[in-house]
Amino acid sequence: MIKVGIIGATGYAGGELVRLLLGHKDAEIVWYGSRSYVDQKYASIYQNMFQLVDANCMDDNMEALADQADVIFTATPQGLCASLVNEGILSRTKVIDLSADFRLKDVKVYEDWYKLKHAAPQFLDEAVYGLCEINRDSIKGARLIANPGCYPTCSTLSIYPLVKEGLIDPATIIIDAKSGTSGAGRGAKTDNLYCEVNENIKAYGVASHRHTPEIEEQLSYAAGKPVVLNFTPHLVPMNRGILITAYASLTKKVSYEDVKAIYDQYYEDEYFVRVLDKDICPQTRWVEGSNFVDVNFKIDPRTNRVIMMGAMDNLVKGAAGQAVQNMNLLFGEDEAEGLRMAPIFP
Amino acid sequence: MIKVGIIGATGYAGGELVRLLLGHKDAEIVWYGSRSYVDQKYASIYQNMFQLVDANCMDDNMEALADQADVIFTATPQGLCASLVNEGILSRTKVIDLSADFRLKDVKVYEDWYKLKHAAPQFLDEAVYGLCEINRDSIKGARLIANPGCYPTCSTLSIYPLVKEGLIDPATIIIDAKSGTSGAGRGAKTDNLYCEVNENIKAYGVASHRHTPEIEEQLSYAAGKPVVLNFTPHLVPMNRGILITAYASLTKKVSYEDVKAIYDQYYEDEYFVRVLDKDICPQTRWVEGSNFVDVNFKIDPRTNRVIMMGAMDNLVKGAAGQAVQNMNLLFGEDEAEGLRMAPIFP
Amino acid sequence: MIKVGIIGATGYAGGELVRLLLGHKDAEIVWYGSRSYVDQKYASIYQNMFQLVDANCMDDNMEALADQADVIFTATPQGLCASLVNEGILSRTKVIDLSADFRLKDVKVYEDWYKLKHAAPQFLDEAVYGLCEINRDSIKGARLIANPGCYPTCSTLSIYPLVKEGLIDPATIIIDAKSGTSGAGRGAKTDNLYCEVNENIKAYGVASHRHTPEIEEQLSYAAGKPVVLNFTPHLVPMNRGILITAYASLTKKVSYEDVKAIYDQYYEDEYFVRVLDKDICPQTRWVEGSNFVDVNFKIDPRTNRVIMMGAMDNLVKGAAGQAVQNMNLLFGEDEAEGLRMAPIFP
Amino acid sequence: MIKVGIIGATGYAGGELVRLLLGHKDAEIVWYGSRSYVDQKYASIYQNMFQLVDANCMDDNMEALADQADVIFTATPQGLCASLVNEGILSRTKVIDLSADFRLKDVKVYEDWYKLKHAAPQFLDEAVYGLCEINRDSIKGARLIANPGCYPTCSTLSIYPLVKEGLIDPATIIIDAKSGTSGAGRGAKTDNLYCEVNENIKAYGVASHRHTPEIEEQLSYAAGKPVVLNFTPHLVPMNRGILITAYASLTKKVSYEDVKAIYDQYYEDEYFVRVLDKDICPQTRWVEGSNFVDVNFKIDPRTNRVIMMGAMDNLVKGAAGQAVQNMNLLFGEDEAEGLRMAPIFP
Repeated sequence: MIKVGIIGATGYAGGELVRLLLGHKDAEIVWYGSRSYVDQKYASIYQNMFQLVDANCMDDNMEALADQADVIFTATPQGLCASLVNEGILSRTKVIDLSADFRLKDVKVYEDWYKLKHAAPQFLDEAVYGLCEINRDSIKGARLIANPGCYPTCSTLSIYPLVKEGLIDPATIIIDAKSGTSGAGRGAKTDNLYCEVNENIKAYGVASHRHTPEIEEQLSYAAGKPVVLNFTPHLVPMNRGILITAYASLTKKVSYEDVKAIYDQYYEDEYFVRVLDKDICPQTRWVEGSNFVDVNFKIDPRTNRVIMMGAMDNLVKGAAGQAVQNMNLLFGEDEAEGLRMAPIFP
Repeated sequence: MIKVGIIGATGYAGGELVRLLLGHKDAEIVWYGSRSYVDQKYASIYQNMFQLVDANCMDDNMEALADQADVIFTATPQGLCASLVNEGILSRTKVIDLSADFRLKDVKVYEDWYKLKHAAPQFLDEAVYGLCEINRDSIKGARLIANPGCYPTCSTLSIYPLVKEGLIDPATIIIDAKSGTSGAGRGAKTDNLYCEVNENIKAYGVASHRHTPEIEEQLSYAAGKPVVLNFTPHLVPMNRGILITAYASLTKKVSYEDVKAIYDQYYEDEYFVRVLDKDICPQTRWVEGSNFVDVNFKIDPRTNRVIMMGAMDNLVKGAAGQAVQNMNLLFGEDEAEGLRMAPIFP
Repeated sequence: MIKVGIIGATGYAGGELVRLLLGHKDAEIVWYGSRSYVDQKYASIYQNMFQLVDANCMDDNMEALADQADVIFTATPQGLCASLVNEGILSRTKVIDLSADFRLKDVKVYEDWYKLKHAAPQFLDEAVYGLCEINRDSIKGARLIANPGCYPTCSTLSIYPLVKEGLIDPATIIIDAKSGTSGAGRGAKTDNLYCEVNENIKAYGVASHRHTPEIEEQLSYAAGKPVVLNFTPHLVPMNRGILITAYASLTKKVSYEDVKAIYDQYYEDEYFVRVLDKDICPQTRWVEGSNFVDVNFKIDPRTNRVIMMGAMDNLVKGAAGQAVQNMNLLFGEDEAEGLRMAPIFP
Repeated sequence: MIKVGIIGATGYAGGELVRLLLGHKDAEIVWYGSRSYVDQKYASIYQNMFQLVDANCMDDNMEALADQADVIFTATPQGLCASLVNEGILSRTKVIDLSADFRLKDVKVYEDWYKLKHAAPQFLDEAVYGLCEINRDSIKGARLIANPGCYPTCSTLSIYPLVKEGLIDPATIIIDAKSGTSGAGRGAKTDNLYCEVNENIKAYGVASHRHTPEIEEQLSYAAGKPVVLNFTPHLVPMNRGILITAYASLTKKVSYEDVKAIYDQYYEDEYFVRVLDKDICPQTRWVEGSNFVDVNFKIDPRTNRVIMMGAMDNLVKGAAGQAVQNMNLLFGEDEAEGLRMAPIFP
């Protein structure tokens, strides 16, 4: 049994970790951390867990946690994990950080985009970016995993093969992303009230969203040179789901079959990435509640561009599910353990 | 391995059966029946099953099915199961009917409310009403299970103990029910279009809904005399979930503790019925995707009535989940096999 | 031109007042009160008013307001209006209070249900309950109007005629109400976040909601004796709309035509109350954005009960629209001025 | 009084025409055309119009209509208007066609994209594209107005000024559009059922949507040369609203103020186009129910692109509202008559 501690267990990503880990045959949650609800029954906050979770919420005691847990998930605001982690912790336990603290290798880029001083830049080199399909081998031996952001997971998996194979010009990449509202977190803000989100769609963080450099960094590795791109997220009136629609100019004349072959080459052995059949557009409803990413593309010969699309559940593959996938890799489990549930529809 | 055939696999209840059975360790679906989509890939209709289900849809050949399947689920319109079932079928396989054909013992009541001639009244006596928490023992030996309706499941489980114990006057029972839209099925009707359902609530079938006699029959067994009641369903703009709010006059002065003790007596050993803590109202979000029914009550001393509430997922405990629970009972499986997933939130 | 001041102009009811008054040919808003946003552009808070409203938000200075406004709308939390109003104010201006401060004639009932000390009980006798269809004449000469609550408006209009005419037994009345989320206000609370409300339905305030005594008081006037009833509100995932489904036992044998004649007698000359055709159930989508209340009923001979239904827009007839209707009556305007817009669908 | 006939009065755009024209002081609807519901009460189909519209639905008799109506709105499927219009009709009445039949000047482009033979190409030259803010003067004298598509209205108004002024390279334009579900019409299709649309987002018509050539044609006029672009629509779970997010490369170094000045130059005298303040992103909720288009932009110096955004109500400015605006221009009315209602929120 892998003993698991969660810091931030009452946020939406934390709640999803609990849901997934309850179905994992080799994991046991030993610490439901939630500073806001210390000593309250976890199931009184997440009533879906009534009679399934008996524990109370606990404070964020990283030292105690490191002694009790084989792995700690930090599903917390930016900056917190970096402020808590240290050599003593990492020598005793694994850390999978769902925040952005260890996703960007360049501390200056982090500090510019997040407007925060990084509290533990000494671990940036060591931290492994936990995009399992790309970095599987490095993940296996890591102590500290930077669990990817929701938009970067969906964007990178959808675009990466075509950049890596040189089929598209990275300088022309534009990503138009749409997310359900759970991505905005459980904080009580007027902007996230039901009546403000329902019957509405808006862009936000235009040309300034903090997931931009994360996507750029990953695609830069694929391109072998720095990539700068446009990324525009939108808030959609639904609970879960991310859809990205990405555009780029083709570098050469290619057929549907050419491009399909490349996607298949990268993903045909990947359980969680499904390359859809021709002309089937990814839809968030077909992945809800699951760890799948559905990807597809369409060539537009009129403009010589390819439109790349990806859909996933932002709380699963975009957060808690990928975190569990990383845990499975870290502990030598079957990578899909606890993550095989089919998408729920409708 | 239990070999399972599904007739009506592309309706919402049929799709949910597929989702649940994929997670069942001892069941294998051998027949995806769907007259509308014969020979088409099942996963091309329910794209969530892409790469999970490879089979094509098949026609409704009950004879062939009886040879291949240990159990047949009929998730079909009223009248179909009754027209297909016969002694030859039942001697070879089990049938779990998700339609209303075998729920009412009195053929006249069926024909009055459903405006259909019953094609197989000779099996009404034999059929067992598959409300597992009430009829567990009879279910185990049955050949033909009448899987309960969604509203009757939620209503009966919420009200049954207080009727049975004589705490409420059955003549005063009023059930005001609210359902998500998946209950209306996947047929293409203007009334069920997104723009017609969204931003709307309405009552329908007022004083005439066909689940009324089904609830009345079950509560009559509890009361030991005929029960006539009001049942009013409402359509709510959400995919899943049923909430019932029921009212009845108390027959004697009782305390919270008295009533709570009765609910506990009936349900404390029931995994799928959760009696909530004092003053916690059932909400559909806390049971979504799961087989749980959450029930609770509130005494109003001003009017001497008790308000009984129940929430469940109409596609799980209200249809496919209970059908699987029945299958587990029929085949001697752990009753909760394939049904232990925690509710999904948000 | 009627000069209008609004206190609480940035709540949902306040915003709706602004929307309606912009379309009123004889009214001009001179004061957009909002303590939370003093000196900020009103249109920066309610961006729908960009280029339509140029004013800034102002503080709650009742004295200054009384000098500048012919009528003051208080769309504020319970207790505020009572704490601000006094003889000096009422001698200079009219007050239409959208809170509950002056709706209940018995100060003790107010203090019991609202858990507040009433700051101005001396005006309770004078205040007129502004349910226009019932109290039209008294409203015309009033200084202080208690604008009815949303649930009480819909409930009373749906039930009043049958109580008044003695057709139903008031002791058997049960009201099961469903409301869109704008009724919960614009305060930033976790419970009202998009992901908490969406895909969910729940009862709240069971046997304890503060609109209960308000409905009881109005129906007591109709009954000529005290009425005690059950009222259960539910929160529905939609922005606007209230539907009430009410149940009561008939006191005598009546036909559809008998009951219809009574509703017609009360409402056939009322522009804003529409008695629907036989078997047409009220739906909130058919009244959205308008001041209409749609009512209808169904007799259930099996139980000898009548089911009464009413639908309206909680922000219009349930708040701002009725407030404007009251203003029209106070100032001798056409009662429907500014309120003739057809419902918006879809 | 302008006598108005509507063909297709029971579709969503037709219903919206009725709503708007009821509030128009100089228009009267004399013909509610709806082939599907001939002789049925219009208000029995659109129950919001109960007691507001007394008329029955009528068949599509264009000859009779031309005698009775000063203007005919055709809110009908592609091809129908072209098949009905002729010189005799146009010599007697004005026609405002809400379908695509007369939007594209090149009959071959129409037939390629719409897969239809055009039945009246002889009127293509004469027809005026009714984008009021661009073609106001030509509209005034027209007999036949091609009312613009929803996506083209929002896209063209958002992008046109920067193309016209040469600030962006037209070859780089990418439009990512998002629409509410009323845009899909009222036909009973499985894909548009509540449970299929709710909790989902998807792209559709990728690189093949029929509004593409319409946008290209309009922007070509601005560019003075053919424009080819990418246009990707998405279906959003909400009733109303279109948001477009458009991307293009800047042709020179410009400041925020430079670009703002250009938008202001085109729109500061336009009542229905609102150029928002700096950094305020258009949102569909702020225009719902109104004829406004809210536009804004953001320069991204990192990529040298500008992101242009526009939001409007697809049924108002994107269909019925613009049609009424065109009618006002045709008949010398105040252009905003019947269209001054403020957006409804929430």
